[in-house]
Amino acid sequence: MSSNSFGKLFTVTTFGESHGPAIGCVIDGCPPGVAIAPDDFRRDLERRATGKSRYTSQRHETDDVEILSGVYEGITTGTPIALLIRNTDARSKDYAELADVFRPGHADYTYWQKYGIRDHRGGGRASARETTMRVAAGVIAKKWLREKFHIVVRGWLAQLGPLTPRLTESGVIDWDQVNANAFFWPDAATVAELQKYIDVLRKSGDSIGARVNVVAENVPPGWGEPIYGKLDGELAAALMSINAVKGVEIGAGCAAVTQRGSEHRDEMTAAGFLSNHAGGILGGISTGQHILASIALKPASSILVPGRSVNLAGEAVEVRTKGRHDPCVGIRATPIAEAMVALVLMDQALRHRAQCGDVGAIMPRIPGTMR
Amino acid sequence: MSSNSFGKLFTVTTFGESHGPAIGCVIDGCPPGVAIAPDDFRRDLERRATGKSRYTSQRHETDDVEILSGVYEGITTGTPIALLIRNTDARSKDYAELADVFRPGHADYTYWQKYGIRDHRGGGRASARETTMRVAAGVIAKKWLREKFHIVVRGWLAQLGPLTPRLTESGVIDWDQVNANAFFWPDAATVAELQKYIDVLRKSGDSIGARVNVVAENVPPGWGEPIYGKLDGELAAALMSINAVKGVEIGAGCAAVTQRGSEHRDEMTAAGFLSNHAGGILGGISTGQHILASIALKPASSILVPGRSVNLAGEAVEVRTKGRHDPCVGIRATPIAEAMVALVLMDQALRHRAQCGDVGAIMPRIPGTMR
Amino acid sequence: MSSNSFGKLFTVTTFGESHGPAIGCVIDGCPPGVAIAPDDFRRDLERRATGKSRYTSQRHETDDVEILSGVYEGITTGTPIALLIRNTDARSKDYAELADVFRPGHADYTYWQKYGIRDHRGGGRASARETTMRVAAGVIAKKWLREKFHIVVRGWLAQLGPLTPRLTESGVIDWDQVNANAFFWPDAATVAELQKYIDVLRKSGDSIGARVNVVAENVPPGWGEPIYGKLDGELAAALMSINAVKGVEIGAGCAAVTQRGSEHRDEMTAAGFLSNHAGGILGGISTGQHILASIALKPASSILVPGRSVNLAGEAVEVRTKGRHDPCVGIRATPIAEAMVALVLMDQALRHRAQCGDVGAIMPRIPGTMR
Amino acid sequence: MSSNSFGKLFTVTTFGESHGPAIGCVIDGCPPGVAIAPDDFRRDLERRATGKSRYTSQRHETDDVEILSGVYEGITTGTPIALLIRNTDARSKDYAELADVFRPGHADYTYWQKYGIRDHRGGGRASARETTMRVAAGVIAKKWLREKFHIVVRGWLAQLGPLTPRLTESGVIDWDQVNANAFFWPDAATVAELQKYIDVLRKSGDSIGARVNVVAENVPPGWGEPIYGKLDGELAAALMSINAVKGVEIGAGCAAVTQRGSEHRDEMTAAGFLSNHAGGILGGISTGQHILASIALKPASSILVPGRSVNLAGEAVEVRTKGRHDPCVGIRATPIAEAMVALVLMDQALRHRAQCGDVGAIMPRIPGTMR
Repeated sequence: MSSNSFGKLFTVTTFGESHGPAIGCVIDGCPPGVAIAPDDFRRDLERRATGKSRYTSQRHETDDVEILSGVYEGITTGTPIALLIRNTDARSKDYAELADVFRPGHADYTYWQKYGIRDHRGGGRASARETTMRVAAGVIAKKWLREKFHIVVRGWLAQLGPLTPRLTESGVIDWDQVNANAFFWPDAATVAELQKYIDVLRKSGDSIGARVNVVAENVPPGWGEPIYGKLDGELAAALMSINAVKGVEIGAGCAAVTQRGSEHRDEMTAAGFLSNHAGGILGGISTGQHILASIALKPASSILVPGRSVNLAGEAVEVRTKGRHDPCVGIRATPIAEAMVALVLMDQALRHRAQCGDVGAIMPRIPGTMR
Repeated sequence: MSSNSFGKLFTVTTFGESHGPAIGCVIDGCPPGVAIAPDDFRRDLERRATGKSRYTSQRHETDDVEILSGVYEGITTGTPIALLIRNTDARSKDYAELADVFRPGHADYTYWQKYGIRDHRGGGRASARETTMRVAAGVIAKKWLREKFHIVVRGWLAQLGPLTPRLTESGVIDWDQVNANAFFWPDAATVAELQKYIDVLRKSGDSIGARVNVVAENVPPGWGEPIYGKLDGELAAALMSINAVKGVEIGAGCAAVTQRGSEHRDEMTAAGFLSNHAGGILGGISTGQHILASIALKPASSILVPGRSVNLAGEAVEVRTKGRHDPCVGIRATPIAEAMVALVLMDQALRHRAQCGDVGAIMPRIPGTMR
Repeated sequence: MSSNSFGKLFTVTTFGESHGPAIGCVIDGCPPGVAIAPDDFRRDLERRATGKSRYTSQRHETDDVEILSGVYEGITTGTPIALLIRNTDARSKDYAELADVFRPGHADYTYWQKYGIRDHRGGGRASARETTMRVAAGVIAKKWLREKFHIVVRGWLAQLGPLTPRLTESGVIDWDQVNANAFFWPDAATVAELQKYIDVLRKSGDSIGARVNVVAENVPPGWGEPIYGKLDGELAAALMSINAVKGVEIGAGCAAVTQRGSEHRDEMTAAGFLSNHAGGILGGISTGQHILASIALKPASSILVPGRSVNLAGEAVEVRTKGRHDPCVGIRATPIAEAMVALVLMDQALRHRAQCGDVGAIMPRIPGTMR
Repeated sequence: MSSNSFGKLFTVTTFGESHGPAIGCVIDGCPPGVAIAPDDFRRDLERRATGKSRYTSQRHETDDVEILSGVYEGITTGTPIALLIRNTDARSKDYAELADVFRPGHADYTYWQKYGIRDHRGGGRASARETTMRVAAGVIAKKWLREKFHIVVRGWLAQLGPLTPRLTESGVIDWDQVNANAFFWPDAATVAELQKYIDVLRKSGDSIGARVNVVAENVPPGWGEPIYGKLDGELAAALMSINAVKGVEIGAGCAAVTQRGSEHRDEMTAAGFLSNHAGGILGGISTGQHILASIALKPASSILVPGRSVNLAGEAVEVRTKGRHDPCVGIRATPIAEAMVALVLMDQALRHRAQCGDVGAIMPRIPGTMR
């Protein structure tokens, strides 16, 4: 499979550079009969978009999706769906002086070492602009999963630097609150504190890391392919491939290191699982409980604080990023992480149907608890 | 690609159940000309093997590898290499009473939901016995990487429950010490404490989680394929697919959440990188610094402490594992994690050579520091 | 996908050399619940086997299949099925003097050019012995296709050098007759003539080409994936990959060159198709008519007639094959071709189910005629 | 790999319907450093284009290629190359009355059976318009193969219905003549006869089949991956996937059926091969001789001659194609077949480099003769 493709049966291939003419994707393997219109993409693309508040990069892209193929009279036909978004607000001259410089913490140096050539403008292919197409493809996956299985995939900002939202004891997320602010922050009481933190940070010219959590509800048991196509393995790859992600956890995640077996293992009764440390996955296969994934994102490397680096000639230079950038890339990562989880689930759903048939759960599902 | 296969060009397909006649693998795409003998597998298989100390499961397997194909007069020919190990110490009757029961924290329930049938003996395909073949395949990858690029892939136990080894300030690992004890523990001063902790734990019938770190040294810059074949994305999938792993981190990992950009981004000078928070990977491509990966493993679910569960009929049952099991599966995970990292690197090496040629580094490598 | 693997979802990976310890395969993606026993393999393996008559190579292999994994209490579990056959009648010393010689018409020269090393004994990996595992894997595919869809895949020898069987005007094959002789020859009246031709040929030390036809009956409409996963495209690859095949035709095949559109296009009425020049495939998707494929096989290159060649040093040598070989490899190709057709259909069946669901024909099938 | 993708490492994914907004492709895995400009595509696209003479469909498309990504300042960067062509001369109303009708010999019926929905306009995805992108992708492959290995891939029309060009005894093709007429016909003396034949045919409202041959010169020995990634197997799939192809032959092809082993096997001397019945491939690996492939194309099914068929309701209808169509689709198939051969070779070149390194021929190449 090509390295710019994702998914075995529901296959998304993305293309495009940050400041090239356009970005786009080809979605192959979509079941026929799904209703898709350009408007379907709008909501999630706006959630991901920059320029919506002072807390993200000031690049303004309309992100109008053109459907080039695979949809006839508003319905998917089973042939490849090509989506295209033109780049309109690319200010390449902001990057002119970076043509010969490797920005620290960026892919500049590694792309150059790999290929011996790079499109430096706006980070080229390594720019987070690529994730626009992940979100767009994820919209189709989310729609199919919801219509066919009532699956809902949602994420929230679970930490920003030192700040964490206060959740109820049961861990239930207030989705209205998540949708009510620009940060996907589930705790109304601390939004102001969060805003103030980011404002101070932005003025200091620095950036901060973050954590994003995603939950997929109503996933049937039985999805996931052992051994190397495990559901958690593929979620890990999908989430780690998002720009800036440095850690991926499923269920209890790293906290499992200090857990005892008698605590971690999720006991079952006829009424269902009694806990969900597993995060809805055992042996790489879904249990029917909520799928719980969490990602750790590094702070953006494009900051006003000057940093030491080298240029193509190997000479020492000082780098100070003047382009339009995010003080915390984690904020906009929420819809991207949702999309990647949805794409993995969609693909596994088709793979499960291929091998085991479209039979649904073999025995009554055992309900579970949220983390 | 089949779901029991791993790697795009250096492709490892494993087969076999814990208590079936044999386990084995087929390694396809291996370059011709690599010297391979049955003895090459012995060291790493022994490091992974059970029954070597009282700290691991008491199952004794000789793990003699038979090379069935792909090697002629001791040299790989470029055709598929099949490896076979017969199962000899499988005590299936230990599992007879578990045929109709879903052990909590195990894949019993999910395999049954997926397939409607399962080989329950010893966990069947979901058993960690499958990892024997990962280690065997990893031996070939390690050998090729070492001979061709001087790459060394090594791991250590970085945490066991509440215990962590004390390292020097520079983080340099004492490999002699790692090899000197049964735990891959790099700190001689605390081995006794570790042994005592496990002894107490084992007597209590419970188990504990762990953390394993792996470092790959001398990896050339330029390996890794953006966007969906990123080196860190593939490491995440490879490591998360290991039994019991619940979290994967690269470089600074989850600690990046509270880092500032000015701290996290690894500055460069003509003399090299000044830090390695990135863990040797930027934009999904290797920087030439050490590749640093860390995994969090859950505590084993097979414990003497009784647990609530259900049987095939959906009735409540009490489960208490009487088979031979590990108090901490993380101990034996070290050689497995090394193998998975080596397999990812080998595959990416061939993929890089395919697209960009066998040219080595395009510009002098910038050396780096350890985490 | 590895190059020794075949099929996207029903994936067969074969390994082994002609004179190595064993040959085998791993079948991944098989649906759970299929009853499989070692005896199931016997019939087709015997049809493919050498040493059964004086018309094929005198190598005698028992071809006892050992099932190493993936089958529990006689039923497939959905995990990889590994099959193993030990090589027992490999007379490698027959080949000792060929170690440094490139036999004309063989893969000796090309393997050496590719890999710089080769296992010359019995042709190594390039030997038709590899096809044993294709037949074995095909047995499972045939069984599933028959049980689930009543699909029957059968082949016959359609030409041997200048000889062709006489068929009825409707082209209907007398399968009893095909099974009644060692040649898969559907015409009782000319079996004696065929035997005599081969006897004369064998005594002359030469060999002859052949044509084998395969028909798959009861294939539902809708199988096959445009554009690059077309059913006919994959049949072409599958059949061309059989040793000695130099041509593949679907339906009218090469005869279409001189047909007019008004003749070739298969008209339809409410009662069904009026002809089947398409061979049951339009636009890469099955029509519901018989799938018709035909392959042309070259004459064996291993003959007693001396031939000019070169050795490793580039010096001229004379080659005369003394090993045990077939006067016409096309004879034994019939079960191999059937197996490859069955494997393609099985894989496409799963892929169709993945994308379009397990719904069966959307509208009543239009019956068709045989070629 | 998705079914609209082609190639393992040099991967081409095409999208688009005949009368949709656009057709396009994404080429992933292209080596960096290849100079590519929009003009590079012009020559081959014009060779494939309709509307150039009265002998092909009268649809006029400008086929202007827009490069959307992967090329920076005229040089490939190693990131995915997206190419786009807008459809401008799609006359969908020509097809309005065919919305509910299955044209005989077309994919109308099978797409509908598979997906339950279809874009009937101009054949939708099944239209030969899709091959435009194969030719475009092939341009890049041809360029790289020529620059790096001096490989030249060229085709000619080898038969049109009953007519065959007269070639010299050695079989050498007069390429100037092939390029001098609209038919890729290598025989100046019979061009007029050919034109007359097609004129008469077109007036009769019927169509005719054809044969196209392709030769690839200067392919190094050692390319091709046994067993299921054989060079001839992949050529067969690539060529059979072209619209209207019903047969694929390599080297002697179907003529091998009546050949003796002593005739077919290509003997070797120190000066080289003495013949090329193998078509440049032995055991699935290139020999260093010319690669010779031949395809048989069926006559176009879109003809003025009325044909019987059924509609969606299963009622009998009469179909008479009024759109713009080709009397012989084989004419325009020549550049398409060249492209498919070039794409297979490019992919195999990268795969060979991955496994065996960039070493070129291991021993001096043995020259060969043309078919």
